[in-house]
Amino acid sequence: MANKEGMLILFSGPSGVGKDAVLDIVLNKDKSLQKSISLTTRDIRENEVDGKDYYFISMDEFENMIAQGKVLEFAKYGSNLYGTPKAPIDKWLSEGKTVILKIEVQGATKIKELYPDSVAIFVLPPSMKELENRLRSRGTEKEDDIKKRLDIAREEIKRSKDYDFIVINDDLESVSNNVLSIVKSLDFSYKRMNNYVSEVINNV
Amino acid sequence: MANKEGMLILFSGPSGVGKDAVLDIVLNKDKSLQKSISLTTRDIRENEVDGKDYYFISMDEFENMIAQGKVLEFAKYGSNLYGTPKAPIDKWLSEGKTVILKIEVQGATKIKELYPDSVAIFVLPPSMKELENRLRSRGTEKEDDIKKRLDIAREEIKRSKDYDFIVINDDLESVSNNVLSIVKSLDFSYKRMNNYVSEVINNV
Repeated sequence: MANKEGMLILFSGPSGVGKDAVLDIVLNKDKSLQKSISLTTRDIRENEVDGKDYYFISMDEFENMIAQGKVLEFAKYGSNLYGTPKAPIDKWLSEGKTVILKIEVQGATKIKELYPDSVAIFVLPPSMKELENRLRSRGTEKEDDIKKRLDIAREEIKRSKDYDFIVINDDLESVSNNVLSIVKSLDFSYKRMNNYVSEVINNV
Repeated sequence: MANKEGMLILFSGPSGVGKDAVLDIVLNKDKSLQKSISLTTRDIRENEVDGKDYYFISMDEFENMIAQGKVLEFAKYGSNLYGTPKAPIDKWLSEGKTVILKIEVQGATKIKELYPDSVAIFVLPPSMKELENRLRSRGTEKEDDIKKRLDIAREEIKRSKDYDFIVINDDLESVSNNVLSIVKSLDFSYKRMNNYVSEVINNV
């Protein structure tokens, strides 16, 4: 059968909404998906694996990659850089794969400019109150930080209007299934199926 | 929770590809879907139910409905008219429902002009040879008719480029699941979720 075109999926949502938990289930249930791994200059933590959680690189390496156009977008948090490497995404897309990229709202805007055919999914909390509860239950955030994160979350949620799909994380299993439905449906978009159409018409 | 917007799905494919069989499974698995029932002036057959298979009406009634703007599109086959009634679709859409309309390619073009937000799915045969086998196995078509139908099918398949999604009916169960994924994913399009977004931001 004909080759499929690749598909890039951007996956965003406010801090605390549960993006990683959703993504873990989605990637576990659909092994054909490729997850883009981000670059970071921060130190590796005890439970982390280089090349799985992040690519842990030095500030020099990061800056060289930026200079060589190998980073699609990057941002600074504290004194560390975080970014999206270009090469793996382009490779997977050329192989016809579906690539999922977890990314915050500003980064998603940049990527969408570079890959206009990418499809963006935003994870919404059931309510701001529930998001607050989730942030608080982590137990790692100070009261001031929680207020700041909620303000940022509100701004991010407003920008969900630039997204193609919105899912609500009210239940981890059901939101994961909803994301899987979206991902699966994209396999059948005309853009990805037009090779098959030609094949059916031409191979009588 | 906020109300969802309705969604109109157009469902096309060449004669013999198995649209009805797919649609039966899809409607059976997702009871929230509404199927648009067509109007026809032809006689009712023994195994058919008025208001389920078609609305069986007289030529006078059909022409009156057209004159009153109550028919979205219609076409003549032999001496009979077939068409799509406007009122049920508008009612279901206003109730936020997902409506599926089985329709041939020309009719779909007209409906898409009237309902630009509608989403169109095209069912492709695995090959023209397989479509020919299916038409032949019906045993009801003359050799000349089969050739004619295959020519029409080829033209229709070329026009699948105006469709949003393409599914291949190589296996009834899997193509039905693929259609269900597409239908489910549309529940999460931004257009249908924006009420929820406002609700989450505003109800702190």
